[in-house]
Amino acid sequence: MNQILTVQRVPPTIFVLLSILLILFRQKIEDFSTVFEAIAEYLSTDLPYKLSPDDVYLTVGCAQAIEVVLTVLARPGANILLPRPGYPYYEARAAFSHIEVRHFDLLPENGWEVDLDAVEALADENTVAMVIINPGNPCGNVYSYQHLEKVAETAKKLGILVIADEVYDHLTFGCNPFVPMGVFGETVPVLTLGSISKRWIVPGWRLGWLVTSDPNGILKETKIVDCIIGCLNISSDPATFIQGAILQILEKTKGDFFKKIIDILRQDADIIYQRIREIGCITCPHKPEGSMFVMVKLDLSLLEDIKDDMDFCFKLAKEESVIVLPGVSVGLKNWLRITFAIEPSSLEEALERIKSFCKRHAKKK
Amino acid sequence: MNQILTVQRVPPTIFVLLSILLILFRQKIEDFSTVFEAIAEYLSTDLPYKLSPDDVYLTVGCAQAIEVVLTVLARPGANILLPRPGYPYYEARAAFSHIEVRHFDLLPENGWEVDLDAVEALADENTVAMVIINPGNPCGNVYSYQHLEKVAETAKKLGILVIADEVYDHLTFGCNPFVPMGVFGETVPVLTLGSISKRWIVPGWRLGWLVTSDPNGILKETKIVDCIIGCLNISSDPATFIQGAILQILEKTKGDFFKKIIDILRQDADIIYQRIREIGCITCPHKPEGSMFVMVKLDLSLLEDIKDDMDFCFKLAKEESVIVLPGVSVGLKNWLRITFAIEPSSLEEALERIKSFCKRHAKKK
Repeated sequence: MNQILTVQRVPPTIFVLLSILLILFRQKIEDFSTVFEAIAEYLSTDLPYKLSPDDVYLTVGCAQAIEVVLTVLARPGANILLPRPGYPYYEARAAFSHIEVRHFDLLPENGWEVDLDAVEALADENTVAMVIINPGNPCGNVYSYQHLEKVAETAKKLGILVIADEVYDHLTFGCNPFVPMGVFGETVPVLTLGSISKRWIVPGWRLGWLVTSDPNGILKETKIVDCIIGCLNISSDPATFIQGAILQILEKTKGDFFKKIIDILRQDADIIYQRIREIGCITCPHKPEGSMFVMVKLDLSLLEDIKDDMDFCFKLAKEESVIVLPGVSVGLKNWLRITFAIEPSSLEEALERIKSFCKRHAKKK
Repeated sequence: MNQILTVQRVPPTIFVLLSILLILFRQKIEDFSTVFEAIAEYLSTDLPYKLSPDDVYLTVGCAQAIEVVLTVLARPGANILLPRPGYPYYEARAAFSHIEVRHFDLLPENGWEVDLDAVEALADENTVAMVIINPGNPCGNVYSYQHLEKVAETAKKLGILVIADEVYDHLTFGCNPFVPMGVFGETVPVLTLGSISKRWIVPGWRLGWLVTSDPNGILKETKIVDCIIGCLNISSDPATFIQGAILQILEKTKGDFFKKIIDILRQDADIIYQRIREIGCITCPHKPEGSMFVMVKLDLSLLEDIKDDMDFCFKLAKEESVIVLPGVSVGLKNWLRITFAIEPSSLEEALERIKSFCKRHAKKK
């Protein structure tokens, strides 16, 4: 890990001030310690070691967790390895922090697994980290224990961190159960990002976390933890009363709540996988097993007056009032990202409309 | 204004993506337009022109508004003029954005008015803006119309923006009424920062705003508005359900609510000004007329075993469980910032303890 030399951007005076405030307001802070304990407890369930409340940092949604990580890892010449297709917020924040982006492919024919050879080929002495999003956005994949183990070993070999975006944690409905990347924290230090937005379906509440899944304390040793603290000290916090609700949210949500959501998503995944097969110009290389998205491929040669994925999406929105995201915006031109977190009957209706749209625009034989 | 050449840090691809999303999700955005209208309406009340909803940007508290402004104004070699004493978050965020900080003094003998000669002396061709905090943190001052007019004229002469931190807007209880800096938006472009935290006493709700008080459209012309939009597009938002409550909060809060708070603060200001005069080693140069703070000066020559303001605060906290902020943390060594937003009886008690602390540590004659 010695190649990660992060720049301490926060001026020392502010640390003096914050230390004073920390001492003066210790009492106030202690009242909130249960929040950090609750999140540490929640995330430790599936780990072979126990996270401490000190491993947990609260953020304004998972977005701020991404922001903090990419701020902290920035240094002149640094590069980061991002998945393609991926979540474009990473590209935007990396550009903002002047971190060079290098893309490795996710392989549709292998259930969107990481092309680990590509990762090895892309990394050099300036690579600071690689990002994996599991369960996957935009691909709906769920990685197996074995694949995540290989990711960890590759990262270890390259001497880079793993940033594990697990904002869709536990939203799985296929064969692979959700395995947190932190399971391999002994192999490689992992920065785990998450939030209550998806699993609890409260996307506007803006409460997320950044967690150091690092039982060997490498992130502390290399001062990355200090940088995270410094960065969060000069950033906005999540609303206090949402922080105050976390304990109840994590501890008291009944299994039925989750089961109902998973059942709907499983049903949706079945519907979308079947219905897409009835549409000639769209193919789905891998049935979604997690998150709430699927990536499907457009065959433009079968369409008459559709230029590309963007054109497809605009015309579909205009003609059928159905909104799907053009693949180009997540890194795969002439693919589509379909979100299926919707009542099954509405999903059926939407797919029916996509089908008739495609039929209407099909190349005449 | 031509010297403000801001750096566009957001990559063009994200703008393409965001444009798509804006078009696709137009409906969703329109549902929230009333929020921006409500804030524009609220802030227009005291202005000689009308703000448009497009002038309003929502932020995660006033802290994120500061963050965005100092991000947007950053460019190689830039400097900013900050008040001393001031609010140290500005120094921290300026350092983070690599903006050089130059301090102008607030003059206690003139009711903490800005030393405008110092402002003129400090500014050069790389100065991008000056910050004023009114009502004042940490001084409790409220600037007159005439003084703000002079600030505007000075800024105009220097060709710099005014960042008006009005997070304590309307919390005034002296002779000067609150005058928003935006009143002088015709003279100089003003970036107004505010929040619901203070006036509505909801400090943890994390909903603030950044408003361009600029009827001549100079901020749009110089692309600063584009930079603000770009920056906010890759930042976290305030919680949606707090956004949803804004309309009710702004339009339906009764006058009684504000009157009660102002009455308490006025009573507190009277108490603190009188009681401080009974304490030999502390002097108050200016009775607070706004916000919830007062700056008082320590005379260490009258104290036996107190090294400085920091030492004073630590010992006071330990011996009397009374917490005041050492002046050094806001830029004035051997001063104290006392927060008086508290029930008058508790304030009396706290000042009694400070008095006995000072008596106990007084130099023996």
